[in-house]
Amino acid sequence: MKVGIIMGSKSDWPTMQHAADMLDLLKVPYETKVVSAHRTPHLLAEYSETAKERGISVIIAGAGGAAHLPGMAAAFTPLPVLGVPVQSKALNGQDSLLSIVQMPKGIAVGTLAIGTAGAANAGLLAAQIIGTHKPEIMANIEAFRKEQTETILNNPNPAE
Amino acid sequence: MKVGIIMGSKSDWPTMQHAADMLDLLKVPYETKVVSAHRTPHLLAEYSETAKERGISVIIAGAGGAAHLPGMAAAFTPLPVLGVPVQSKALNGQDSLLSIVQMPKGIAVGTLAIGTAGAANAGLLAAQIIGTHKPEIMANIEAFRKEQTETILNNPNPAE
Amino acid sequence: MKVGIIMGSKSDWPTMQHAADMLDLLKVPYETKVVSAHRTPHLLAEYSETAKERGISVIIAGAGGAAHLPGMAAAFTPLPVLGVPVQSKALNGQDSLLSIVQMPKGIAVGTLAIGTAGAANAGLLAAQIIGTHKPEIMANIEAFRKEQTETILNNPNPAE
Amino acid sequence: MKVGIIMGSKSDWPTMQHAADMLDLLKVPYETKVVSAHRTPHLLAEYSETAKERGISVIIAGAGGAAHLPGMAAAFTPLPVLGVPVQSKALNGQDSLLSIVQMPKGIAVGTLAIGTAGAANAGLLAAQIIGTHKPEIMANIEAFRKEQTETILNNPNPAE
Amino acid sequence: MKVGIIMGSKSDWPTMQHAADMLDLLKVPYETKVVSAHRTPHLLAEYSETAKERGISVIIAGAGGAAHLPGMAAAFTPLPVLGVPVQSKALNGQDSLLSIVQMPKGIAVGTLAIGTAGAANAGLLAAQIIGTHKPEIMANIEAFRKEQTETILNNPNPAE
Amino acid sequence: MKVGIIMGSKSDWPTMQHAADMLDLLKVPYETKVVSAHRTPHLLAEYSETAKERGISVIIAGAGGAAHLPGMAAAFTPLPVLGVPVQSKALNGQDSLLSIVQMPKGIAVGTLAIGTAGAANAGLLAAQIIGTHKPEIMANIEAFRKEQTETILNNPNPAE
Amino acid sequence: MKVGIIMGSKSDWPTMQHAADMLDLLKVPYETKVVSAHRTPHLLAEYSETAKERGISVIIAGAGGAAHLPGMAAAFTPLPVLGVPVQSKALNGQDSLLSIVQMPKGIAVGTLAIGTAGAANAGLLAAQIIGTHKPEIMANIEAFRKEQTETILNNPNPAE
Amino acid sequence: MKVGIIMGSKSDWPTMQHAADMLDLLKVPYETKVVSAHRTPHLLAEYSETAKERGISVIIAGAGGAAHLPGMAAAFTPLPVLGVPVQSKALNGQDSLLSIVQMPKGIAVGTLAIGTAGAANAGLLAAQIIGTHKPEIMANIEAFRKEQTETILNNPNPAE
Repeated sequence: MKVGIIMGSKSDWPTMQHAADMLDLLKVPYETKVVSAHRTPHLLAEYSETAKERGISVIIAGAGGAAHLPGMAAAFTPLPVLGVPVQSKALNGQDSLLSIVQMPKGIAVGTLAIGTAGAANAGLLAAQIIGTHKPEIMANIEAFRKEQTETILNNPNPAE
Repeated sequence: MKVGIIMGSKSDWPTMQHAADMLDLLKVPYETKVVSAHRTPHLLAEYSETAKERGISVIIAGAGGAAHLPGMAAAFTPLPVLGVPVQSKALNGQDSLLSIVQMPKGIAVGTLAIGTAGAANAGLLAAQIIGTHKPEIMANIEAFRKEQTETILNNPNPAE
Repeated sequence: MKVGIIMGSKSDWPTMQHAADMLDLLKVPYETKVVSAHRTPHLLAEYSETAKERGISVIIAGAGGAAHLPGMAAAFTPLPVLGVPVQSKALNGQDSLLSIVQMPKGIAVGTLAIGTAGAANAGLLAAQIIGTHKPEIMANIEAFRKEQTETILNNPNPAE
Repeated sequence: MKVGIIMGSKSDWPTMQHAADMLDLLKVPYETKVVSAHRTPHLLAEYSETAKERGISVIIAGAGGAAHLPGMAAAFTPLPVLGVPVQSKALNGQDSLLSIVQMPKGIAVGTLAIGTAGAANAGLLAAQIIGTHKPEIMANIEAFRKEQTETILNNPNPAE
Repeated sequence: MKVGIIMGSKSDWPTMQHAADMLDLLKVPYETKVVSAHRTPHLLAEYSETAKERGISVIIAGAGGAAHLPGMAAAFTPLPVLGVPVQSKALNGQDSLLSIVQMPKGIAVGTLAIGTAGAANAGLLAAQIIGTHKPEIMANIEAFRKEQTETILNNPNPAE
Repeated sequence: MKVGIIMGSKSDWPTMQHAADMLDLLKVPYETKVVSAHRTPHLLAEYSETAKERGISVIIAGAGGAAHLPGMAAAFTPLPVLGVPVQSKALNGQDSLLSIVQMPKGIAVGTLAIGTAGAANAGLLAAQIIGTHKPEIMANIEAFRKEQTETILNNPNPAE
Repeated sequence: MKVGIIMGSKSDWPTMQHAADMLDLLKVPYETKVVSAHRTPHLLAEYSETAKERGISVIIAGAGGAAHLPGMAAAFTPLPVLGVPVQSKALNGQDSLLSIVQMPKGIAVGTLAIGTAGAANAGLLAAQIIGTHKPEIMANIEAFRKEQTETILNNPNPAE
Repeated sequence: MKVGIIMGSKSDWPTMQHAADMLDLLKVPYETKVVSAHRTPHLLAEYSETAKERGISVIIAGAGGAAHLPGMAAAFTPLPVLGVPVQSKALNGQDSLLSIVQMPKGIAVGTLAIGTAGAANAGLLAAQIIGTHKPEIMANIEAFRKEQTETILNNPNPAE
């Protein structure tokens, strides 16, 4: 039971580490690796096809621009794949978002928001997926949620 | 172990039934219900908060326009929530997509494509999530995937 | 007779304080509070459902990204709700705007411009709403409008 | 206590009559008139400047394309103005929406959704505004809202 | 024979002065004034209606956001009106552009590019309009065009 | 004193004839011709460079998609050029609009709305340009404007 | 010396046959095949990796939505790859275009217009590429270009 | 056998030098020149029409905004033309992209990504085109590709 976090380039790490941080917080084990759909397509095929047997339950894939990594990972594995649109330079991640979310019928990618919030939520959703049959992970999620609720309830004054 | 399919209006059913059809194909049990974030907010809270204890593992929520149903369902449950942007009239689902996918850090929605392909893939991804710990569901997914691959391999001529 | 200003996060305050400033200028009483649709959905329900009996006439709600706060506040109260799309990081508030303005028939949100101008105008429109039956507030609005007209008439040279 | 519904052209009536229908339903009196910002600017000035003294409480203005009617009506009156972006031919109302909602600080327009849903909600929001000090209108709104909630609660099956 | 340059706010001057600079270069007389469609609608009506008799041949109007100034100036005068979409904060002038260019049939605005290039070209196009019957202005335009052509022909190396 | 109406393809005629119709109405002489920037670039150069000596005062150019005709006509003539973005199939004229309006500093195109309204207004603006020194054309414009104003004043009921 | 035309689905054939038609016209040999990046990723790898040795000079790949076919074909071959964005249902090919054109540095796709014009031009550009060293193909292209120029020169009247 | 790199302005050089750098890396000869479609249209015609006889095989053209250079170069030559959308100020290159890629049937431009990545890939694709009949260039491309693959394989840790 492990999450695999992959990304197309080291330059995606400042975004994708938010997925890793969330998994740390929720005590879900994970691995991280640079895998490029375009520059290392064979590595992508091998990584995705062997993911299940290597004990991975969910793949989180982040990429920007013509972002093919999440969809191609999903093409090579029956595991659930979550996609994070990395904010791109010219188009601010609109290209990343559409390249990831608009998958055709038959191969699915669960897509999160553009940028760091999306990466953090990919970690959270991966944990929720694992939590559907791991009560201790679900308990961690519920504690995290309770805490973020209470942070607001205890600090309701916006101007403070 | 069941999927809950909810939608904001009966007019979303022609889209959302593609989620139901996919779950039928993959032999995953599910229930369907109209739940409106705006017109029945208390029902949404109750539906989402009791989903886990009622045996639901994954919620699929479809809505169009200022589509708040998936994000609000996620706000009321720790279960994984998948969002389907229903194609809207004026803006063709661009509003639905952004209203669903751009969730802030802390509450996640795994978003699929706009329209029927997205609904079908929500069913598929829900099955993949359940398949992470139900080998018989995973086997159904792999059979479905093998078949769609072979359909192309056996019919490679586009003009036929 | 009071305006309730709510926002999804403290980070929205630099935008939303322009609503408060306008209400100060027009001498309309108000309260401010952080209420998150996603992280404190029960607080949102309670805040909105009790607003009328607590003497609130108009709710101004500001949020960014998949901005569900204004629409969900409107779902829980028959009071007029005004929505302010906070400028988001990747999409500059286009997501916030569409998430707020594209409400389905039956639950309305009066939406203002993205960012600080929209927040100030939410304060102004709230005052105009109250001014329909409070002549002293209407007088304040007319004085404010007269002054902003005269500022231009007295300084017509753009290069000065 | 009356609502003034204006629109830039007779061709906007199929959209704007949804505002009138909603006001009929909620028993709020109204008048309707074609007033074009571009072709009858003096009429617009006169209509807006005399609206208050003629007993109008709220103006609903609908227009499409480079939609200047709502903002210019607001420039000539201190009454609350609600804007309805009519769906345009080439750009589906994206031009109408931005032309109406992106008002600068100092003159406000409460903007509703593109098209017929927006028009209906403009009627509803106008009634909510009047309802802040007319309990019998507020009661009509609450009855309307209760009914639309019950319609869903009583018909929860999407496939029926 | 004069050009009238108007703008909605002093903050538009850094953009609009490029129109003035171009007219200086081409030796076309002009005047500049802040005229706001929203905050000084009567001044706008008066300015536009008297422009022709005051010796103005072409009006250049610049505004940002829900930019109503060019279209409303055109509504009050039969003179040719050129519109400059000022780059707005959140939407980078996309709102300004659509608010100016998408005029309905019957009232025309000749629209230039967003920002300073558009302002300079508004000056140029105003000069071209006047040049259709003032040969000395046409000669200035042709000299300007020849010079900008030669600047490139004489400096063809991009890396120098 | 004549207007030259050019377009990239015969398929643009259903749009561009609205420019011709407006010029007929205003009694401004014109010629029409298919001139393609991409398929007949030499014709375009020759047409534009000889336009002035052939008695043309204003060029109206309509094109769709990557619409280069108006800008390239402007590159070859010092006459004022008006551009009409023809509504394209996939992108509804958004590509046409940006290709025409976003000209760099130094070569100007006065751009009208997408589609038939823009074509009609190009005819109107061409007449307004000529009207700056032809009082009889200006009189025709003022009569046209008066009539369209009166059409509304005499038919103010939208539902009739 | 052959062109390989691939597409993600038989439903892309009505678009992609325009590439084939153009190659027929220019007498360039080609083959066509359905190859899906998502449903047959191994076939895509094999097709692309063996293309050069099978005598293919240029690959034309058409796909819609989250269109990964052109970019992934390019990842598996050093041959030039041309991408055709097929017009998608909800977003009219904006998703297809961005998914194809926004490739990261290091793997290139030459992208054509959305839809049938783009497919025809992909055939034309493939022929132009081959024509750089096959004079008889270049002659065919020049004849085609001459004919399309003359079609306009001989039929300059748009209204005929 | 040479590549011609042209651009509309010296200000495009910081983008376009990435095309030159890539051609240097792949040992493909090239020339660079400023050629403006709008300010030097005759130079553009001459440059493009004589390109083939001057030994140029592929033209790379970069431009921003209403970017007409690539399409107009293609109109004057049967050589393959690759277009690079330079990132523009207000619209971030969305205008450049659509102005270049949306060419009508009959004149093709192979379009690359917005900005420096697109420029580098234009150099790469030009080399791939030449490589289809120059094995030594193809060998350079394959070496470049192998190296970029190995850079990732040898540095798979994103956080290092």
